[in-house]
Parts: sequence; C-alpha cells; structure tokens
Amino acid sequence: MLSEFDLIKQYFQRPRPGQAVLGIGDDCALLAPSPGMQMAISSDMLVEDRHFFAGADARMLGHKCLAVNLSDLAAMGAKPVAFTLALALPAADRDWLSGFSAGLFALADQHGCELIGGDTTKGPLNICITIFGELAPGHALRRDAAMAGDDLWISGSLGDARLALAGYHKEYALDDAAQVAAGARMHMPTPRVALGLALANARLAHAAIDISDGLVGDLAHILAASKVGATLDVDALPAGPVLAAQPQALRRRFCAAGGDDYELCFTAARAQREAIIAAGVACGSAVTRVGTIDAAPGLRLVDAAGSALDLQLAGFDHFASA
Amino acid sequence: MLSEFDLIKQYFQRPRPGQAVLGIGDDCALLAPSPGMQMAISSDMLVEDRHFFAGADARMLGHKCLAVNLSDLAAMGAKPVAFTLALALPAADRDWLSGFSAGLFALADQHGCELIGGDTTKGPLNICITIFGELAPGHALRRDAAMAGDDLWISGSLGDARLALAGYHKEYALDDAAQVAAGARMHMPTPRVALGLALANARLAHAAIDISDGLVGDLAHILAASKVGATLDVDALPAGPVLAAQPQALRRRFCAAGGDDYELCFTAARAQREAIIAAGVACGSAVTRVGTIDAAPGLRLVDAAGSALDLQLAGFDHFASA
Repeated sequence: MLSEFDLIKQYFQRPRPGQAVLGIGDDCALLAPSPGMQMAISSDMLVEDRHFFAGADARMLGHKCLAVNLSDLAAMGAKPVAFTLALALPAADRDWLSGFSAGLFALADQHGCELIGGDTTKGPLNICITIFGELAPGHALRRDAAMAGDDLWISGSLGDARLALAGYHKEYALDDAAQVAAGARMHMPTPRVALGLALANARLAHAAIDISDGLVGDLAHILAASKVGATLDVDALPAGPVLAAQPQALRRRFCAAGGDDYELCFTAARAQREAIIAAGVACGSAVTRVGTIDAAPGLRLVDAAGSALDLQLAGFDHFASA
Repeated sequence: MLSEFDLIKQYFQRPRPGQAVLGIGDDCALLAPSPGMQMAISSDMLVEDRHFFAGADARMLGHKCLAVNLSDLAAMGAKPVAFTLALALPAADRDWLSGFSAGLFALADQHGCELIGGDTTKGPLNICITIFGELAPGHALRRDAAMAGDDLWISGSLGDARLALAGYHKEYALDDAAQVAAGARMHMPTPRVALGLALANARLAHAAIDISDGLVGDLAHILAASKVGATLDVDALPAGPVLAAQPQALRRRFCAAGGDDYELCFTAARAQREAIIAAGVACGSAVTRVGTIDAAPGLRLVDAAGSALDLQLAGFDHFASA
C-alpha cells in the first residue's frame, strides 16, 4: 500500500542542489530570490481528455507538463529556478508515477529547475504546475511592448503537433512514420528557454508570447496589449518537417492556427536582425522572420506574393466549443 | 457565450493595488520581492467530492480554497503577498463564477493577497491555488524546530469541522442548528495568519504546522522532523463550541484527529508563555497549552489526570482508504 507521504518521498523528493532554502516537506517551501531580481510566475493546469489523451504515456506527460510551464518563462525571458507540482490521481499507480517523475525530472534537470513543493490528492487526473523564474527588472518580454515597424519572428517550426492531432482524430490520413514523427512534437514539446533568455538579457526583442493556442490567436494577444496591428506572411511560416510534406492549404492552416507548438512568437527592431539570427544559432533554435508589426490595427494574412489570404481561422478557446 | 478570456476578465481580473509588477494577462506574472526577504510558497489542490461536496456553495468554496493556502503561510509565519489560481470547470456557469470569485476576493482582500495569474480550463471541477508570502531569513516556523521541554500549543478550537462531516454523513445525529453552526467551521475556516506572523516575527515559537489532516497526524510530522516526542493532554484540547456539547468520547476523538480544522499547532519555550497569550489576545485567536515536547520519541496521549489514553486514531491519508 502506497501512502500519500510515501508516494511523495519515493517519486518526488530528491537531494536538492538548487536555490531553495527549504524544499518539500514543510507547510511552505522557502525560496531566496537573487538580490535585485524579479520573480516570473506562471501556472498551467493539464486535464486528462482535454490536454492529453486518457492513457497517455506517463514519461512523455511528465515532460510535457513541465515543458508548457518552462515555455511561459521562455516567453517572458526568465531563467527557470523552481516549480511546485499539484497532482490529482485516480490511484497511486507505481508504474505511472515512476514514468511521470522520470520524464518530469529529466526536463527539470536540463533547466536547473527544482521541485520545491506541491500537493497530492485522489481525483480525476489533473496536473497543475506553478513555475518560478528570475529576471532583471525591465528585461521582461511583455505582450504590450510590440512597436510599429518591428519585425515579427517565430522560433523553431509550427504545425506538426496539430497535424499529429488530426491524424489521431482521423480528420486527416497520416502514415505510421509521419504519425510517430508528428506525435513526438505534440507529446514532447521543446520549450525555448535559452532563446527567450538571450532575447531578454541582450534586449534584442520587444514583445514575446509562446504559441500554445495557435499563432494567430496568440499573436492577437500581443496586438491587443500593444495596440498595434500586423501583417503576417503565412507562406513564410516555418512548417514542421512532417507538415512541410503536406498540401499547401493544410500547411497554411496548421502553421497559422495549429496549437500546442510551444514556439516563441516575438517582435524586434529591424536593427536587431543579425543579432537575433546569431542568438538563434547560439541557442540551437531556428528563428524565422514572418512579418511586420503595423501601426494600423488588425491582423492581415498574406501569401508569398503579398496578396491577402482569408484562412477562416480562430484561436483555441476552452469554453467556446463546449 | 462566455469565452475563456471573458471569463477571466469578468470574474478574476481586478485593478491591482498590490505588490505585483505585472498581474493577469501575460505569459507570467512578475513579482518584486521585498529586499532581503525570503518567499514562502505553498500549493493546495481541492477536488470535488474529495475536499468538498458536489454542488457546494460557490462563495464558501472560494473562501475555503484560499483559506487553506493562507493557513500554510500562517503555519510558516509568512506574510501573504499574492496567489495564482488554476481552475478546471465543467462549464462556465456565471452564478458559480460570481459566487466563487466573491468568496475568494473577500478573503484575499482581508489579507492584502493579490491574484496575479493562473489558468482556466474545462474539466472535472478542480481548484489549485499556489500562494506566495514573505518572511525574514531565519524567522520561518519550521517543522524541524521543536525542542524537548517546549510547550505544545493550539490556536482557536478543534473538531467542529469533523463533527459537521459526521452529521452530513449520518454517522452521528446533529440537530439542525448544531449542523449549521458546525458546518460553518467546515466550509469557512479561519486561517490564523496574524497569529502565525506574530509568533514568527517576535520569535515566540519554535516549530509550527497547520492542522488540516487532524492534530495527531499533523503533530507527528513535527515530531518526526524534529526527532522528538510529545505528551498531549487530550482533555486540554479546546473543542469547538458545537463539539463541546457532545459526549466526551466523541469530543476526544474529533479534537485529537478531526481534520479540516486549519488551526495552528506550535511549540514554544516555557519562557514565552505570557508573550504567547498576549499575542493571541492581540490577534483575536485563542491559544491553549495542550502538552509538552519530550526528548523520548513517540506521542503519548493522556487524560486530564495524566493517565494514558488509547484513542485508536490515525491521520488522514488520501490514498490509504482508496
């Protein structure tokens, strides 16, 4: 019989090499912020059958839950420090716990991000991580900082996660190899932490957001917060390797409004083009220029020739299609 | 149709008078810690049918979700600063949201604790709050700080929440007035924030914990972490007003192992007795001396005459009775 306290001790409590003064095992964890730094804080809740399939591989799920939170720090330009994990589990299943914690800690260790506390309870599977990062005052990549004339950039590639979902749902036929390759992007997203840090620390970018609900929907948040518009060259969007081999209409849709990409969309002055490309190389993340920020409000989608495109897209809303 | 973003804007986004540099509406919130202070962090996840009844009053639920987190800060001696809220909802029900946010913010405002971010998604009802407090280095009321010879203290009163549960479950017959009065303690617990702060700031207490799973079970965490034992005078435990009118056997059981009390159990040197009583008066929380910390390991329950009691108790474990 695995008790709540044994479960925490066996699967989640580790020797702590991190920044925490006090980790798991008291009423609160204690964190000593670095002098003069601000804390960046984000929470993401992942629910079975909503954010992941019932029976999803536990190791990949452990990775993904932390990855989506790290992606929020990346989009702010903050350095990961620590996180809490609240977990509702239908049962204390040793195989699941072992896989989940392995996937979680493999990614946490890559980023020096320490598990400092949380909660464990019985209930429908639900995973809520709150993550803490640090950044220097004034360095945050805020959504309200885009300026007319800025270039619009995208990290990595888009749409393979959405393509995998289409394959799983049989809305689109994918062969097995393509399904597996696209599925890897959906289940094991790569948070662009190093790139976000580089953009913020060297003051290369103005605004940034991570693309979780689809580029067009997420970009709209930057445009609204910054009171600007944008022109987006849909054919310049970097399709993921599996999506790149699919027909143009699908490529355009899934690049522009895929969801689950966890790439960075950011804006920067034209004068920073060389430095941004160099930062991308240094961080191992491709960076692609895909449009411009305009003074005129609204988002204009255009093709490679500059002609207007109407893709009939909408961002993802958890309660819209309920 | 209430979208995810409208939901956040209408029910959870407010003008911010707090300490946050940036609140709801970006990838992360930004918090500027007070110079030299440590951050105390705690997460609690509340699940329908586990921590509260299906159909529970939304306003009281909003209160309780934040109260249990504030109670963790109180048990550490930290001053509340801010919190994040992650919410999985079966549907975007306006009445529920309106009641829940009213209960939540009424308590948050009492403690100057600002909602700075979170997540909203569709799913089985699940409420996860992560709370942030501040304290001076070395002032935390840690579980491992109890010392042999310390007095053992309890704030407020115990057992009425457990009595209410017994009434709801028909394991014990309560008349309507008693059920309502005891139920108020279960649904609207009072976090002992001011008392925790006073104990920590004036260095009055050594160890502390908040009583959520029942006194005996929670006290065991202090004893294990501090490598000490204790003698607990069960008949000295302050029963809640409704429980106080019930038979002795029930009183003893529900005081010693009730659960959902959210009172503080703390240890302090004998020399602090007067100061602790004065702090209790100043904070409006009763404080009662209920035993002593011993060098010999183990917890000894005794009655008013000092004779050993065996109540056959166990702490609450979320996976033990699964």
